[in-house]
Amino acid sequence: MVKPSGKPLFITFEGIDGCGKSTQALMVFQYLSSLGYKVKLLREPGSTHVAEKIRAILLDKRNHIADMTELLLYEASRAELTAKEIAPLLAKGTIVLCDRFYDSTTAYQGFGRRLDTRMVRGLNKVAVGDINPDLTFLYDIDLKTALGRLGKSKDRLESQSKAFFQRVRRGFLEIARKDRRRVKVIDAAQSIEVVFEETQKILLKKLNK
Amino acid sequence: MVKPSGKPLFITFEGIDGCGKSTQALMVFQYLSSLGYKVKLLREPGSTHVAEKIRAILLDKRNHIADMTELLLYEASRAELTAKEIAPLLAKGTIVLCDRFYDSTTAYQGFGRRLDTRMVRGLNKVAVGDINPDLTFLYDIDLKTALGRLGKSKDRLESQSKAFFQRVRRGFLEIARKDRRRVKVIDAAQSIEVVFEETQKILLKKLNK
Repeated sequence: MVKPSGKPLFITFEGIDGCGKSTQALMVFQYLSSLGYKVKLLREPGSTHVAEKIRAILLDKRNHIADMTELLLYEASRAELTAKEIAPLLAKGTIVLCDRFYDSTTAYQGFGRRLDTRMVRGLNKVAVGDINPDLTFLYDIDLKTALGRLGKSKDRLESQSKAFFQRVRRGFLEIARKDRRRVKVIDAAQSIEVVFEETQKILLKKLNK
Repeated sequence: MVKPSGKPLFITFEGIDGCGKSTQALMVFQYLSSLGYKVKLLREPGSTHVAEKIRAILLDKRNHIADMTELLLYEASRAELTAKEIAPLLAKGTIVLCDRFYDSTTAYQGFGRRLDTRMVRGLNKVAVGDINPDLTFLYDIDLKTALGRLGKSKDRLESQSKAFFQRVRRGFLEIARKDRRRVKVIDAAQSIEVVFEETQKILLKKLNK
């Protein structure tokens, strides 16, 4: 069995809404905790006092937000989370898991909203500085299955068109294609158990390096 | 007397807290309205539904916000105001007055907080696109007089140290020095009436061009 090493590790969980990434992030959190690791599960946007206030603006369906405003609010939330939680936790040797991080912004605001992806990546960099994920799970899934899982409880973002989500999905795959070392693609149309098995396998490989 | 021309004009009012810019902006608004111009007075951060929510986060003294988060929140508020109000108003031929705009971010977050001013200017550009002020009044004042005017009702930002405000004041003057065509410096330690006379003179010159 793996021995807790204290090596800081920053792991992010990505994919379109309904892909199951939040479930997998929670399962990884419980698994690593059970192995004795110091581990913290965060989510984006949000997870700090100020970032949760930003999250409330972003996810309120009544708000009609300009695309550039939306992008900058995500980056503001990320800057806060990175400075206040992620960087200090990693410095203490805690493993940090984050449900969404900057790949979501590149995929949703860049590919989905069609904002200039170079500009989006530039803002990602501004928000996080030198804090980059060591490992990213991308849970890839077809749109029909994902939207079926979401049911009727759609927030402002989840109410977008199918074409939008197709662009986001393609965006995520493009990100993974360009950074295979960091981003691992898992077929998320499989059962939760099988998806977790694959996640676990990649995770253990990374932990034992 | 001046005849309303319908020429769109974007005018911003800048300076450290307590310099009197909000008073002058209001006086200019009333003056232009009395001359029959279509004119709108806005303030930053805020002035739209979403931007006012962002303003509430920024000005709440209980929030301890990371510097980069603060910067990105100002830019988010600015992007929203520019897209939703300033650009459409200018397109309709309305004169737009704005109490603070991007020079405040360069001065406060760049010079005051010592964030990289090149990065700050880059974010300003991201937020506003092609919408730049045609004329900017900088109300320059010494710190003692300005802080004396503020009295005890200081918000989160106004509670900063004197050294901070000195840097901000120097930042504003540096911005004016580099863009003399757009930014007009007025000595704001003078009486409200004299400051308004000087403001009016520059304003009429711009309107009659």
